Amino acid sequence: MTPAARRDALRELLRAAELDALLVTDLVNVRYLSGFTGSNAALLVPAAGEQGTRLATDGRYTTQAAAEAPDVRRVIERACDRVLVVAAGNDGIRRLGFESGHLTVDAHAALLEVAAEKGKGVELRRAPGLVQQLRAVKDAREIEALRAACAAADAALADVIEAGGLRPGRTERDVAADLEQRMRSHGADGPSFDTIVAAGANSAIPHHQPTDAVLATGDLVKMDFGALLGGYHSDMTRTVVLGRPADWQRELYALVAAAQAAGRAALAVGVEVAAVDAAARAVITDGGRGPEFSHGLGHGVGLEIHEAPALSATGAGTLASGMAVTVEPGVYLAGRGGVRIEDTLVVRPDGAELLTLTGKELLAL
Amino acid sequence: MTPAARRDALRELLRAAELDALLVTDLVNVRYLSGFTGSNAALLVPAAGEQGTRLATDGRYTTQAAAEAPDVRRVIERACDRVLVVAAGNDGIRRLGFESGHLTVDAHAALLEVAAEKGKGVELRRAPGLVQQLRAVKDAREIEALRAACAAADAALADVIEAGGLRPGRTERDVAADLEQRMRSHGADGPSFDTIVAAGANSAIPHHQPTDAVLATGDLVKMDFGALLGGYHSDMTRTVVLGRPADWQRELYALVAAAQAAGRAALAVGVEVAAVDAAARAVITDGGRGPEFSHGLGHGVGLEIHEAPALSATGAGTLASGMAVTVEPGVYLAGRGGVRIEDTLVVRPDGAELLTLTGKELLAL
Repeated sequence: MTPAARRDALRELLRAAELDALLVTDLVNVRYLSGFTGSNAALLVPAAGEQGTRLATDGRYTTQAAAEAPDVRRVIERACDRVLVVAAGNDGIRRLGFESGHLTVDAHAALLEVAAEKGKGVELRRAPGLVQQLRAVKDAREIEALRAACAAADAALADVIEAGGLRPGRTERDVAADLEQRMRSHGADGPSFDTIVAAGANSAIPHHQPTDAVLATGDLVKMDFGALLGGYHSDMTRTVVLGRPADWQRELYALVAAAQAAGRAALAVGVEVAAVDAAARAVITDGGRGPEFSHGLGHGVGLEIHEAPALSATGAGTLASGMAVTVEPGVYLAGRGGVRIEDTLVVRPDGAELLTLTGKELLAL
Repeated sequence: MTPAARRDALRELLRAAELDALLVTDLVNVRYLSGFTGSNAALLVPAAGEQGTRLATDGRYTTQAAAEAPDVRRVIERACDRVLVVAAGNDGIRRLGFESGHLTVDAHAALLEVAAEKGKGVELRRAPGLVQQLRAVKDAREIEALRAACAAADAALADVIEAGGLRPGRTERDVAADLEQRMRSHGADGPSFDTIVAAGANSAIPHHQPTDAVLATGDLVKMDFGALLGGYHSDMTRTVVLGRPADWQRELYALVAAAQAAGRAALAVGVEVAAVDAAARAVITDGGRGPEFSHGLGHGVGLEIHEAPALSATGAGTLASGMAVTVEPGVYLAGRGGVRIEDTLVVRPDGAELLTLTGKELLAL
């Protein structure tokens, strides 16, 4: 889908929401709808048609905006959102939606002032999540980008393992840097988030940042990492054991693996997101570890590492074909160790397609 | 300064602003005031004293929060901001400031609802920028962290140059990856922002993202990069020429270097930030290139790559001892090339101290 086709799809949502236009201020959404990747921008998308569409950015980006968003009228002005409120008023727009899940209270107050002074009757209306709703369903090109990002992460982990990079004596930091460098050598622009490597008792900390802690025989080593490639984020977690796994480690791993398989199996078009979380959670609860699975099951991935839909007990909505999501249950035993297993998948009409292809048997290194 | 001492300093600002407490939702500010680095948190800081201070985060971070913020009462709850509004009400707090430059319109609406239902008379009041105001002035430990981050970037560039890494035939991406890897090998946790490497005509794009464009003899090569180290960001730009510089390149470089020196010389305690921008801009305007210097002169750096104070024509306020700022004028000739020269400095009682120590003579490689 071209940015223009995405704007067309947005127009349908605008008409359904009875809005004359949307003021897009979330930069990820600006990128999705226009192609522009600069760090200061806003986009006005009228419901009536392409005519009044305008991209505002500042003087640093004049050349880049022309190259990246050639099919949109461009306005060079530092106060991007404000200039587009004035433009909307000049175009006769009344009901102007704004991204209330992104715009700050102060920025909103400034827009209300501009609307009152120069807006010619523009009314600002809360309109959260419209572009996020579009972004949740990926087109074929986006899925290929995600597949490439996942492949870079798969290849990096395979390299690290093959080179003996997961061994006693290395630090968590060493392993994290190793994974990130190998993802780059497999084409990644960088990591898709701060790589998590957590060894031994640290693996019981769900979002542990790598330290100088040294990997030791008998440790669970949990690695949660991903590649950023062409703007798209992959996300994968694998947990391995250094040396011969203890019985409790095997049992813990088997429990989480079964929950993860149940979560993956629950992915299907039309299923409630909360039901996917429940399917995986039931396995862990039945195994007596419910309280130690202390987070949601997964989340959408794409231009952001966390985006719609949320696969959690409190998540709302149903799965649609083309949604890209993670499935990542974990059980964390404080002071001992934790296991998390995570894949990135795409929901398909007949189930879910795995994008992260690294095996999930318990690896003893 | 310890987090506790910072909270004490904040209390003085709260009393001056006639607030009973501040609800801190900006995660960088939460980190600054508590030491906690997780990805979901809020902090309640009452004006009256340390007693009612509370850090809220979710179950993923129970262990990490105890380790990083041992001296603060902790609340484990996913809806961090909401639970603290209720806690504030229970503690008898009336005038509760919130970070209106950070909180979104939707999040604010949710807090208003909670305050009305369970807040026992809590009133939410806009209180933007209070913690940013404290953060703008760095203590000795923060300046050492910035110095270390700047040193990693200096060392990386020196390595790249010494290894012949700036030569015709390499791509912008190659050079960017090289700089980032070498910053890591000099102790950086990563780059402090997406490294900019822009060769030839691309150097005229102020914020160009590295591409597969190949460096060629005669090119200006502009590199804007920094290291992230212990949470602190360095920021430096250098522009070099491959081969013998053309006259227009020499002239352009000399103009920007003179403007940058003027900007640095203008840094002093008590000076208006706009006056610093003006001092550098006057040099470029006098050189006939005013319109081609299309951005502000610089910005504060610290726990964020861009923070207070802004050194721009529209910036407000004066410099204080301990502020860390960049000075980065640039002139961009579309289709030909651009030059930017940037340092990170600390304002001192008797002028400014340079933290980025790489030389600024025109380097012909």
